[in-house]
Amino acid sequence: MAKKPKLLSDMFHDTLKDVYFAENKILKTLPKMAKAAHSKELKAAFVKHERETRGHVKRLQDIFKILGKPARAKTCDAIMGITKEGAEIMTDYKGMPALDAGLLAAGQAVEHYEMSRYGTLRTWAEELGMKDAAALLDATLKEEKATDAALTTLAKSVVNVEAEHEL
Amino acid sequence: MAKKPKLLSDMFHDTLKDVYFAENKILKTLPKMAKAAHSKELKAAFVKHERETRGHVKRLQDIFKILGKPARAKTCDAIMGITKEGAEIMTDYKGMPALDAGLLAAGQAVEHYEMSRYGTLRTWAEELGMKDAAALLDATLKEEKATDAALTTLAKSVVNVEAEHEL
Repeated sequence: MAKKPKLLSDMFHDTLKDVYFAENKILKTLPKMAKAAHSKELKAAFVKHERETRGHVKRLQDIFKILGKPARAKTCDAIMGITKEGAEIMTDYKGMPALDAGLLAAGQAVEHYEMSRYGTLRTWAEELGMKDAAALLDATLKEEKATDAALTTLAKSVVNVEAEHEL
Repeated sequence: MAKKPKLLSDMFHDTLKDVYFAENKILKTLPKMAKAAHSKELKAAFVKHERETRGHVKRLQDIFKILGKPARAKTCDAIMGITKEGAEIMTDYKGMPALDAGLLAAGQAVEHYEMSRYGTLRTWAEELGMKDAAALLDATLKEEKATDAALTTLAKSVVNVEAEHEL
């Protein structure tokens, strides 16, 4: 295979495919987390974020269109690892008082991965002069940050008190 | 195996082992990233963070001591996935202009994972009334945030301009 120089535009496209995979994986994972959660507030937070995530997938499809490329996913090992840890929590702490605390932590690990990726993609879109793409990425980044902040508030209130209920 | 209720204190201990694994993995990965980076500033940032990471490992050992438990690692699938993606970048973009942009993105994904874990552990330490542990976790969290901010600054200046040099 002849090697042509790989540029920022190539990396942007590669990373877009990575995040497209991640968002679709998250879309499958959120209903399981909502079902597993004990706290009503936490259930509601996961359901709300599932709805937002559908919008994030749509925005990514719009950016593929801007690039003139088909919307394709590329396996994202990071999200596979992060969601595997979340799945382990659901198994190991099933029916246990600390389950919700673990689900919150898993949710925040997902949010932080996304915040890192959307921050990177937005910066690259700006560097590449892709203003519309940068605006779409920025809109999603803001929602991921808001979700993370909402989970932090929940983590400090309802859930952890319940988690030590039996101490 | 008889099931005893798993509480927040159990989850804190489990997550401590997870982060202990992650920090040790990062300690092995940072020298490779420093070696691969083209930009002097980026090399320096990775070297600086390697030094800080040694301190983070030490702090985690101190927290294991507070718990009266041996410092043990538990495989962290999340960091395995995140660093695998970083390793792929180093292979796929070796000698390419966009390599540094990719290394920066990989570094920021690592930082965000750590920020999420340390934020969670600090909150749990506070809930559990472990003030000394919370202070140690907070100190590391602040360094991870500062590293992430430094990488963001680098991403917006030197590196991305170079990455499109051949366009």
